[in-house]
Amino acid sequence: MAKTGTPFVALADWGTSNFRLWLVDGDGVVLGERQSADGMSACAKDNRFAAVLEEHLEALSAPLDLPVVIAGMAGARAGWLEAPYVETPTALSGLHLRTVSPKATRPIHILPGVCQINTGPFDVMRGEETQLAGVVAGGIASGVICMPGTHCKWVDLEGGVVQRFRTVMTGELFDLIAKQSILRLSMPQDGLTQTDEAVFIEAVTEALGSNFSLTTSLFSIRAAGLLSTPGPQDAASRLSGLLIGAEIAGMRDWVNAGKTVHIVGSKSLSALYAKAITLAGGSASSLDGSALVRTGLFAAAQALFQTAE
Amino acid sequence: MAKTGTPFVALADWGTSNFRLWLVDGDGVVLGERQSADGMSACAKDNRFAAVLEEHLEALSAPLDLPVVIAGMAGARAGWLEAPYVETPTALSGLHLRTVSPKATRPIHILPGVCQINTGPFDVMRGEETQLAGVVAGGIASGVICMPGTHCKWVDLEGGVVQRFRTVMTGELFDLIAKQSILRLSMPQDGLTQTDEAVFIEAVTEALGSNFSLTTSLFSIRAAGLLSTPGPQDAASRLSGLLIGAEIAGMRDWVNAGKTVHIVGSKSLSALYAKAITLAGGSASSLDGSALVRTGLFAAAQALFQTAE
Repeated sequence: MAKTGTPFVALADWGTSNFRLWLVDGDGVVLGERQSADGMSACAKDNRFAAVLEEHLEALSAPLDLPVVIAGMAGARAGWLEAPYVETPTALSGLHLRTVSPKATRPIHILPGVCQINTGPFDVMRGEETQLAGVVAGGIASGVICMPGTHCKWVDLEGGVVQRFRTVMTGELFDLIAKQSILRLSMPQDGLTQTDEAVFIEAVTEALGSNFSLTTSLFSIRAAGLLSTPGPQDAASRLSGLLIGAEIAGMRDWVNAGKTVHIVGSKSLSALYAKAITLAGGSASSLDGSALVRTGLFAAAQALFQTAE
Repeated sequence: MAKTGTPFVALADWGTSNFRLWLVDGDGVVLGERQSADGMSACAKDNRFAAVLEEHLEALSAPLDLPVVIAGMAGARAGWLEAPYVETPTALSGLHLRTVSPKATRPIHILPGVCQINTGPFDVMRGEETQLAGVVAGGIASGVICMPGTHCKWVDLEGGVVQRFRTVMTGELFDLIAKQSILRLSMPQDGLTQTDEAVFIEAVTEALGSNFSLTTSLFSIRAAGLLSTPGPQDAASRLSGLLIGAEIAGMRDWVNAGKTVHIVGSKSLSALYAKAITLAGGSASSLDGSALVRTGLFAAAQALFQTAE
């Protein structure tokens, strides 16, 4: 990737616990990059947002008047400056129209999050909307986007418009239950290192069955550890299968709507979700998510600055 | 209650974190009582079971040869001496036939727990079986028994026989989610002090509906806190309703089997379960659980010693 070129804009992905910054030229080519643990949580206490940003920009020798476009928790109520949620249905190409600009020595634009009030249960996202803008900029304007992680986002995308979305706490529940509930006594000492596929599939199938109830099934993992001799990865694989299966069962209408589910996540997690979606009768494909935020930020920067020229 | 009489037996409810001991006469009248935090966890490390028991017995001036009957985690694999599980279906009147006796200066009988291997998913109980023996001794030999708490036990009782049972981790999940997940940010500072009944009923009704999925519904509690102005107890009441509702939905076949559900639990929790069971079309009644363990222990002691005389 070219390291030459004139800086056009700086792009920041400012999450709860991580900070990433890219200096790019007018074609989006990366000229420099920074990454640190200066997330929103670390910066909010003494309002260090401006100082942290300038420090990283200086390290990249960014011009003093270079504009910055930011996505993520920096725009939360507890962040640098609140960028109020844009409500669904919302076109991802219009996020730049709703940025907010904190007082600073250079132009700063913080992108808004997206909320759902009328198209489904109350829901919010902040950061993922910019990844989604990257998905659209990459050529996928319609489909179901599934973004597994701590809080998995499911997004119904139609012609570049977020029609509706759902957040499922699968990753967070897995961690809490595996590490802190009674089931921790049945988990492998070093966590789930290698999912046992047969056990995972059996648990997903159970979760997709009629009359499945997650809370009534969980304790059987502990009891199995006391009454039988499961393999070392069985308990964690089963917990993973029950939780992901329960998630897919809850999203069955979306999975079976005839749209491809595009999965954006780590390779191993994407493979598990793809397997579960297939078991539910849907079709899934994996999307490389590594550059999506940057692509979405760059699209917003182009809309902000190139039309204004 | 009479404080006179000759000690017939000492009865101990020895749980994970609590220890209770009663000295009773031949009619089951309590002559003395002890309670402490010397649970299984506190005693297991240095194998202090015998010493702790003798200390409490001495404080009650129990005769040196007085037998002791024990229920609970003292009989777990990590306890004093393992009392292997009795398998369902099992008659609660026969628990005394499967006690184990650790080496000690006096006769000690530890009652077994109950396990399920073939009549349903793997499941275990240890301590509740003695409460159930108390239920039977109190005159209820058939019905569904629901014992809410950290791990809620549902028991299908028929003529004094545990036919099958299920454990649901509702209480533990409520604590983990309310205190440690992202939803903690929406919970009242001082916990759930007063359930909002309208919010609770709405959440239970949602959970009993078709296509309900617990994991997809949970995050809406957090989003509601960001997008609306819920009452101070709304988030916790809704979480309680979703979890208890999901539990009842999972046990719907039992709730609607035409048997009364007898609830054994604290007054406030029993009222919530009764409400949810009624909403699911079942009928519920509350059982005073305060003396059930002691009643069950005494029944076992009578079977052990009065037939042996």
